[in-house]
Amino acid sequence: MRSPAGDARVTVVQTVPEFGAVEANRETTVAAVREHADSDLVVLPELATSGYVFESHEEVAAAAEPADGPTAQAWADVAAETDTWVVGGFPEEDGETRYNSSLIVSPEGVEGTYRKTHLWNEEKRWFEPGDDVPAFETPFGRLGVQICNDIWFPELTVTQARDGVDIVALPTNWVPEVSDRPAGWTMGVHQSVAAANANRVFVAAADRAGTERGVTFEGQSVILGPDGVPLAGPLPDSGSHAATADCDLSRAREKALTERDDALGDRRPDVYDT
Amino acid sequence: MRSPAGDARVTVVQTVPEFGAVEANRETTVAAVREHADSDLVVLPELATSGYVFESHEEVAAAAEPADGPTAQAWADVAAETDTWVVGGFPEEDGETRYNSSLIVSPEGVEGTYRKTHLWNEEKRWFEPGDDVPAFETPFGRLGVQICNDIWFPELTVTQARDGVDIVALPTNWVPEVSDRPAGWTMGVHQSVAAANANRVFVAAADRAGTERGVTFEGQSVILGPDGVPLAGPLPDSGSHAATADCDLSRAREKALTERDDALGDRRPDVYDT
Repeated sequence: MRSPAGDARVTVVQTVPEFGAVEANRETTVAAVREHADSDLVVLPELATSGYVFESHEEVAAAAEPADGPTAQAWADVAAETDTWVVGGFPEEDGETRYNSSLIVSPEGVEGTYRKTHLWNEEKRWFEPGDDVPAFETPFGRLGVQICNDIWFPELTVTQARDGVDIVALPTNWVPEVSDRPAGWTMGVHQSVAAANANRVFVAAADRAGTERGVTFEGQSVILGPDGVPLAGPLPDSGSHAATADCDLSRAREKALTERDDALGDRRPDVYDT
Repeated sequence: MRSPAGDARVTVVQTVPEFGAVEANRETTVAAVREHADSDLVVLPELATSGYVFESHEEVAAAAEPADGPTAQAWADVAAETDTWVVGGFPEEDGETRYNSSLIVSPEGVEGTYRKTHLWNEEKRWFEPGDDVPAFETPFGRLGVQICNDIWFPELTVTQARDGVDIVALPTNWVPEVSDRPAGWTMGVHQSVAAANANRVFVAAADRAGTERGVTFEGQSVILGPDGVPLAGPLPDSGSHAATADCDLSRAREKALTERDDALGDRRPDVYDT
């Protein structure tokens, strides 16, 4: 049985990590959660502790930590202190294997991790893909997680919506190489709008900004309602910012669009060949 | 074996049909194809001959015709005259059953029909849904068809991309009831951008405009490249217009995004539960 879905104050935090400065980056994220202590859920960017543009396995190893490491401890501490759920990205080390992961932390401690399913480009040199799509019961609704490139694969959001997820937390490091910016929006925002709207789920995308080793990240963090309309953001392309929206997550349980139409019920798996 | 994909001049025609005036509406579409005789493919709106807001089965019956009826003949004639492929919507009657269909017509004649898979709202009173997703070999590439609400169901475009479709012709009658207009774009445009970009296919959406029995249609017809970026349009919200783009459909065969990434190859059906 799913927990009831209700009002949740959601914040997406857009940071500018310094590559490899794990302790400083971690402190930035902890301070951001503390600053938004009135939120029920704070979403932080992908690889928020490490930065993104790795050039060697040694660099990844230096930044990676286990799912019960110092970042997990720091986020659990601030989650307990502020009575807030936190979802944020970090390079996870599990024995010899590394993942591009997000921690899901409640005021009671670490609830689990999500390991990025669809790795992008050089990430495939450093990380193994995940193969599980967990969901988490919170006091405000059912929480799913994607990371960055995952949102380009619409079947993942369909999977989560069918699993009853009300809100997808999306730590991301969107880069501009995928496409132009139709209507001024980076393509990750368009994909998020489409995914939210098609599946009637909230999407809370926390992107990073800044330039790292020649790669400029896109910013434009955004919180989308289940109609695909921004409730907060998109934030500016550059710089550290945050956006907060009060979300009635029960709206994600209304898949009926009219008395005759249902976003999930009208799917035609008998016709799809996927 | 697919035909080679190459350069195609594609036009989307945005019309303002008059409800029930089948002959006049048909003439409008024929004139539009003739006006764009230098195109390889002309896409017309959904239900371009009949209008949309039916209020009785009798009204549907009065406008419906078989797939080899007068509209098929008119479009075949003008396709032959102009050496153009035509995709356009009409209410199809097949014995006692009616469908919200598109005709696919080549200079050689009628190639087939596509019957809308995902009917919307009151359409479910008038039409039966289709259960087939045909594709058509043309001299310029492989052509697939969707109609309006179909584009909200991302698995359909995945199905078509996996089937080798290079361009999705999308006759549509977008209505505003689904959502707001983020970034000024009706949600059908956002869904089309996401579908094109995620699957690396062209999308040519021909919407209608105008107000019919109190329903205002959205216009914003658009031709999207396989990166999701508009090549022409979105057209204005209201009025009759056309947009043309020269499309190199071979771009749709490049699913590689980087040397490590592939739009279709990176899907994770082992993880999706759809």
